[in-house]
Order: sequence, then C-alpha cells, then structure tokens
Amino acid sequence: MTTIPLQMQSVEDAATVLRGVAHRTPVLTSTALDARVGGRVFAKAECFQRVGAFKFRGAYNAISRLTPQERARGVAAYSSGNHAQAVALAAALHDTDATILMPADAPALKLAATRGYGATVVTYDRYREERTSLGDALARERGLALIPPFDHWDVMAGQGTTALELFDQAGPLDRLVVCVGGGGLISGCATVAKAQDPPVPVIGVEPAAGDDVARSLAAGHIVEIATPRTIADGQQTTAPGEKTFAVMRERVDDMVLVSDAQIVTAMRFAFERMKVVLEPSGACALAALLAGRIDVTGQRVGIVLSGGNIGVQRFVALMNDAELTEQEEGAAGLVP
Amino acid sequence: MTTIPLQMQSVEDAATVLRGVAHRTPVLTSTALDARVGGRVFAKAECFQRVGAFKFRGAYNAISRLTPQERARGVAAYSSGNHAQAVALAAALHDTDATILMPADAPALKLAATRGYGATVVTYDRYREERTSLGDALARERGLALIPPFDHWDVMAGQGTTALELFDQAGPLDRLVVCVGGGGLISGCATVAKAQDPPVPVIGVEPAAGDDVARSLAAGHIVEIATPRTIADGQQTTAPGEKTFAVMRERVDDMVLVSDAQIVTAMRFAFERMKVVLEPSGACALAALLAGRIDVTGQRVGIVLSGGNIGVQRFVALMNDAELTEQEEGAAGLVP
Repeated sequence: MTTIPLQMQSVEDAATVLRGVAHRTPVLTSTALDARVGGRVFAKAECFQRVGAFKFRGAYNAISRLTPQERARGVAAYSSGNHAQAVALAAALHDTDATILMPADAPALKLAATRGYGATVVTYDRYREERTSLGDALARERGLALIPPFDHWDVMAGQGTTALELFDQAGPLDRLVVCVGGGGLISGCATVAKAQDPPVPVIGVEPAAGDDVARSLAAGHIVEIATPRTIADGQQTTAPGEKTFAVMRERVDDMVLVSDAQIVTAMRFAFERMKVVLEPSGACALAALLAGRIDVTGQRVGIVLSGGNIGVQRFVALMNDAELTEQEEGAAGLVP
Repeated sequence: MTTIPLQMQSVEDAATVLRGVAHRTPVLTSTALDARVGGRVFAKAECFQRVGAFKFRGAYNAISRLTPQERARGVAAYSSGNHAQAVALAAALHDTDATILMPADAPALKLAATRGYGATVVTYDRYREERTSLGDALARERGLALIPPFDHWDVMAGQGTTALELFDQAGPLDRLVVCVGGGGLISGCATVAKAQDPPVPVIGVEPAAGDDVARSLAAGHIVEIATPRTIADGQQTTAPGEKTFAVMRERVDDMVLVSDAQIVTAMRFAFERMKVVLEPSGACALAALLAGRIDVTGQRVGIVLSGGNIGVQRFVALMNDAELTEQEEGAAGLVP
C-alpha cells in the first residue's frame, strides 16, 4: 500500500494559503444540545463560510496550486451545488474564468448564486447522465483545469482546515463527527484528527439512502450505488473517490446512517435552539447525535455544520412534509 | 436637567460582571448585504446570546447588583418574552427563584423556554390588563425584587455591553443602528457610541405600528400609544420608560420606521444570505438598511441582530403570509 500524500503538513500549508481569504468560522455551543446528548458539543459553523459552506476552502486551495499558465486558461467543475459556488468565487478571486457543470434540478438558489459569482453554468440531468465523464470532456474540449469536488489532494487539504480551526478553537476533543458525501471534508478533517496526540476517533455520517461510503468501507473496496434519492442533495454521490476512499479506509473509524426525517429534525433543532440555518447535508452530523446514533455521554465532541445553502421556500416545504416528520421513538439504539 | 447616571463606566462595569457568563457573540459580515446597501455592515449577532437574545446581559447585570438579602427573596419580571427567559436564567445562575408575568399570547416557544429555566410563569391578557401595575403588585405581594425589562439603569448598562463588544470587534464605525422597543438596548448602546472619539451617530428603528419612541422624541415628552399590533412582539411597547426616554433624548440622533412586510423581507434575507434565524424584532435594524430607510453609502455601519427566538411554525406562517410579502418598490426614499 502506497503512502497517502495527504498529511497534516498539507492541511497546514492550505491554512497558510487560506489565511485572510476564508472565514475563520465560529464554533457554536448549545446547552440545550449538550443536555440532549449528555456530552459537550462543539459545532464548527461552516454555514458562515464564504459561499455558505466548507467547499470554499478546498476550491480556493486547489486553484491557488495550479500553475499560472493553467490558471490563466480558466477552471471547470462539476457539482451538485456548493462546490460550484466555491469554484466560481475562488476563480473570481484568482481573476480567472470558471465553467460549471450542474444538475438541472439543483436548488434554484445554488444555480443563481453560481451565476452570480460570474461563472458560466452548463446543466445536465443527474438521473440520466454521468457527470464525471461529462466534466472531463468539458474540461478537455475547452482546455480548462478541472477542480474535482472531492477526489483531489489539494481539495481535501483545504477542507481539512475546518478541523484545524475547530481543534484550535475548542481544545481537545474525544470524537469528531463529520458528514460524508464524496469524502473530501472527512478526509481532510480525519487527517487532522489523526495527527492529534492522542489521535481522535472520527465518525462519518451519511444519509441512509446514500450509504455508498459505509458500504465501501465495510466491503474493503469501492462500491457504487444508484444515484440516491435523499433530501441531502450535497450527499447524492454514487461512490467515494479512489483517493478519498484510501484516506477514509486509513483514518475514519466508523460510519453511521441517518434518515431524511432525522435530518429534518436536526434542521428544526438548529433553527429553533441554535439559530442557524442548515441545509440537509449540513445537518447530517447533528442529526446523528440527536438521533442517538452515536453515544457521546460525557465526551467532548466536535461536529461540522457543513453548509447552510437552502432557500426559505425549500425549507418551508421540508418542514411541512408529513413524511419527513419524525415519530417519537422509545429508547434509540446506541452505536457505542 | 439632572445628569444621567448611565455612563460609559456603568457599561464597562457591567462588562466585568458579564465576563465568562454572557457569550461574546460573533459579528457577522455579508458581501451580499454590503453590495445591497453600498456600505460595510457589521452585524452583532445577539441571536447567539444566552436565551437567544441580548436581554440576558441586562437581566444578569441587574440581578448581580441586588443585595444578597434582596436576591435571596427571589426576583420578578414582566415581559413579552425574551426578558422573561433572561431573568429566569439569570436568577437560576444566581441560585434564586424567578416569578415571571407573561402575556398569555406570547409565542409558545418563549413560554416553554421560560418555564424550562425553572421560573414560575403567571400569565395575563396583554390587550386588557396593564402589565406594569400587575407586575408591581406581584412583586410587592410576594416580596420579590422586580427586574424591569428596560427602564432600569443596571439593565441598560448590561445591554450596552453589546455595543462595547461590537466596537471592539468591528473597529471604528460611522453609524450604529439599533432596534427600539422600550429603549433599553439602544440606551446602553448609544451611551457607548457617544463615548467614542468622535462620537458615533445612533439611529433607532421601530415597527411602523409601534412608533411610541419616535413620537415621544419628536414631541419632546413621553407619548403613550395603544398596544401596537405588529409581528415584532418584542417591540409591542406602548411608551418608552422615563429613564430610557431621558437617555434616548440625549444620545439617539434619529428614529426610522419599518413595516411588518419589510421586517419579513429582512428575516428572509438573514435566513438565505446570512444563515441566521432572526425573530421579527431581531430583524428590525437589518430591515431599515434593506428597505433603504437609512443611507449608509460608503459607511461602516454597526447593527444589532437582537434576537432569534422564533419557532419554525411561526416562521413558516410569516413566510407564507401574502399580506407580509413586500411589493418590489422603485427607488426607495432615503433618509440621509
């Protein structure tokens, strides 16, 4: 097995690049949340990051590491939303053009925001077309540098700065809980967690319908699933990347799954008790705690609230959807 | 005219009392907001304060300044909501009992939260009974120390720590924009603003239906209005207090009014672009900027997002209310 090039130093280098460019987002605590889960929770609020999600970190870091010649020709990306905005803004800050391939059914707010940063948006049907090959073709035809949403060492290193700040702001942690789509965020964050002394256990959270990473890690090889139908549009990935899979296999300790209804409950809790707006994927780690999927009794737990890009209209629809209203359960099964 | 006892030193003393007890809330910036108003806005996010609003600062400061004997007998308060929770929590932290007089139609979340802090809640009909005399009687009968919601020097001094932190976090400001209910928050904040070198202009914002302070300042004496019907339940006051009126007359430069529809627009903007949950009163200052009621072109402007206590159900109802949907206006009239 070859050594993974993503190490703590890569994340520290990314932090240097991002200083004064990315926001150092606040870490929120909530006595209501602590009382509910029986531990002390430190929530890194990446909903306050530029473009409203952690994705800006990785995109900016990756673009900064292109050669000046590559950068001048422009960049391309394929994304279900937040990575699109991130590449669009990061490209604009680097004074270069961005062309973004987005699913036609991406939330309207995300499509509009991406165009708002000055990017050219090309849409595709996410249930019929395969975005990776489309994105590659687009980049090749136009001579653009492709910035992948997760399977790229510089992208992962950038996302890892989230955990670097969290440990600095919260102090020692007993556990780190991070949402998982393609695995870019958790790969960067787990790299930081494993560099702590002692190393900190890392738990990934996926929506139950989109459990490609949980299956892959259990199988010991990459398992591909059909495009999952979940409200967590940031986690509608069909398989982890080769690079993120290698990192997660080495540095992620466990995976847990949450239902869409549990995600909605977490979004409601975040709204009413923490006063923050979370998109479904952004509430995934919180959902795992609130649903009792992870026993954190007496622990200091770091979680990432990864993004807050959701329009009022979609939020209202999710809150009014009876199928997404959780039934009160008895004692939930705990995953120790 | 007698000298006002509320001075910068009172606020600094309150800051000492509140250190390590109240949260030092983050100051949010938003490029979307800056682009909309043409200035640089620094938003002090008191929705992240303990109990979800700035009110905790004043309540805790006031209770800390009671004699040990007074404190041991317990405290009382009358409040439309956030002050109630604030006194309930501050009393609990001081190991004493709180009895709170609340309107029967206060938001359910606020009633429940107040009881949740261990306080005894007594309800009244806000359209038929006069809360001040009820509260006084309650305090007298039970031998409790009354902590008024705004017309109290220690309460105002506590609220002023909001601005003390904001100036420290944001640096020099050209203007400070603060929502006004009874005038406690703006009195404390204006005291800090006027102690800056040079003194900073302070603008108060009221809901159009509840313009008791604007009328009072214009008339040069306290004007009482009927209980206003506005969605901004934190600003349903009928008159400023004697003490807050004296402070505002000396230290507030101007008052502007916003409609309920403009408040809803600001709540929506805060949700979608800033990822924060604001209750109607908490969005009042932001509404004044977004509605063009204050010209801040080229300025560095401080605003207070004063609270975020609103349930999902009420938020959804406000967002769905066609009467509260703003019509796009042409060039809004600017108040220079």
